Amino acid sequence: MFGGIEAGGTKFVCAVGDEKGTVMKRIQLPTADPVETMPQVIAFFRQYPIKALGVGSFGPIDLNFESPLFGHITSTPKTAWRNYPLVKVLQDELRVPVRFTTDVNAAALGEAVSGAAKGIDSCLYITVGTGIGAGAVVSGKLLQGLSHPEMGHILLRRHSQDGFKGICPYHHDCLEGMASGPAIEARWGEKAEELKEKAEVWELEGYYLAQALMQYILILSPKKIILGGGVMNQKQLFSSVYIHLKELLNDYISLPNLSEYIVSPALGDHAGITGALILARDTYPQKELTTGKGSADDGISDVF
Amino acid sequence: MFGGIEAGGTKFVCAVGDEKGTVMKRIQLPTADPVETMPQVIAFFRQYPIKALGVGSFGPIDLNFESPLFGHITSTPKTAWRNYPLVKVLQDELRVPVRFTTDVNAAALGEAVSGAAKGIDSCLYITVGTGIGAGAVVSGKLLQGLSHPEMGHILLRRHSQDGFKGICPYHHDCLEGMASGPAIEARWGEKAEELKEKAEVWELEGYYLAQALMQYILILSPKKIILGGGVMNQKQLFSSVYIHLKELLNDYISLPNLSEYIVSPALGDHAGITGALILARDTYPQKELTTGKGSADDGISDVF
Repeated sequence: MFGGIEAGGTKFVCAVGDEKGTVMKRIQLPTADPVETMPQVIAFFRQYPIKALGVGSFGPIDLNFESPLFGHITSTPKTAWRNYPLVKVLQDELRVPVRFTTDVNAAALGEAVSGAAKGIDSCLYITVGTGIGAGAVVSGKLLQGLSHPEMGHILLRRHSQDGFKGICPYHHDCLEGMASGPAIEARWGEKAEELKEKAEVWELEGYYLAQALMQYILILSPKKIILGGGVMNQKQLFSSVYIHLKELLNDYISLPNLSEYIVSPALGDHAGITGALILARDTYPQKELTTGKGSADDGISDVF
Repeated sequence: MFGGIEAGGTKFVCAVGDEKGTVMKRIQLPTADPVETMPQVIAFFRQYPIKALGVGSFGPIDLNFESPLFGHITSTPKTAWRNYPLVKVLQDELRVPVRFTTDVNAAALGEAVSGAAKGIDSCLYITVGTGIGAGAVVSGKLLQGLSHPEMGHILLRRHSQDGFKGICPYHHDCLEGMASGPAIEARWGEKAEELKEKAEVWELEGYYLAQALMQYILILSPKKIILGGGVMNQKQLFSSVYIHLKELLNDYISLPNLSEYIVSPALGDHAGITGALILARDTYPQKELTTGKGSADDGISDVF
């Protein structure tokens, strides 16, 4: 039995499951302060004989084994979690190996192993919601280098008719600043789900997401792209993305049929927790990880 | 002994060397038509008892083992090379395993194994010259997914003072269309090397290259970035890139000192041929590659 945590900005999902990532028991907690949330997390896992724990966390997080802050949530705006040693607390309390990645990397892993990219050694998972983030599996490994990717903050070309200044505190009109759920609400004065009938909202949103996909495709060449998150529940948005992406790429590269290449998560909201369980499975029995120190591969697992 | 080919758009470099990528003999040929160039290539390698051959080629190339065009140069504007079965010809004539990747991937591999990113399992190599292209090593493997990356064609934000329309036949004002050597020449009316004293040229070029680096960093998080190619011989361009990149990122992520993080190729013009030799070494003795069919890892080698 393995444990998984999807540590999101608004909720913690904790689950135990088998080596296939199948959930057996699951709880959901609000992301309050650590002093409130963490005892509940630990109490949940203490009920089960888990062999290892996988964690997909909101960020930014420190994934560098050589850093004194390895396993910490770092410069998050949620001040109570800033510099919180999540991995160390879990290891100390539960005495099992803990493997740590971003929430979106965990979702990419879940979709790659048992979702929309099952059987494919490469996929990109993008969430468009409160924020925009992406995780990727490349040649069967989670994408990680100097740090984890921050794909939500890439630059966009502003639409000539769009005067909205953007809401990113760092970059104003980057992707997240222009196309996240809160950006949509700030621009149009209503939440995304209230704007379903307004074609111009989805036309513009598709324009920006297609730009992002073009950059991701030209840089990473993923074999499958999965678009999830609350904003993507507006299914009419997919066709807007396809139309703009086709126009932008202008047949420069050959891609599969876009409606098969760029899809919704097959695991729905369970991609992250499934990925966390799979991450735990891939840790076990690598004993060296119980110390928080990884092997030469920086803790990135081959999942295929 | 191993063989390597750096098949560029203007010249073919052929070399034999040892398992460390050290060149023992080397020739350089103009990239004429295949009927002229290839017999010379084959005659060179027939002189040596090579065990395997690595090829870094101009593109686009087909790297999909399941494609009937695997190992071909595909839709290149050099019509005589269009749909040319480079790998098959080399295998048939030389009877050794041939491993195939892009010219920029080979250069990234060379720099990762024995150049500026030596000992690091992740780097990005960018060439800014006749075209703009990039290759990457990610977690010790060459970056390849659905196809090879086409990072030179990412979108840019146009500078408000720049009315140049761009020269990319597919995307007009993408990175290559705005910032390659021919784009510089078309915009300013002189070749890059004649414009050394014009500060505004390098200011604008740095502005565009910094945008590209921002996207690459946020998406790939490389541990080292190597900027090569003819245009980067203008060393004053590096400080322009650093200044613009720092401004764009606005301290959102923490990076090493930019002058240590973004560097010139340590191997100079030898990065590509060194990488091709290393590619050959990593092939041998994987017999299945003699048929042009790869293992499950799509022919991407672990180099660390």
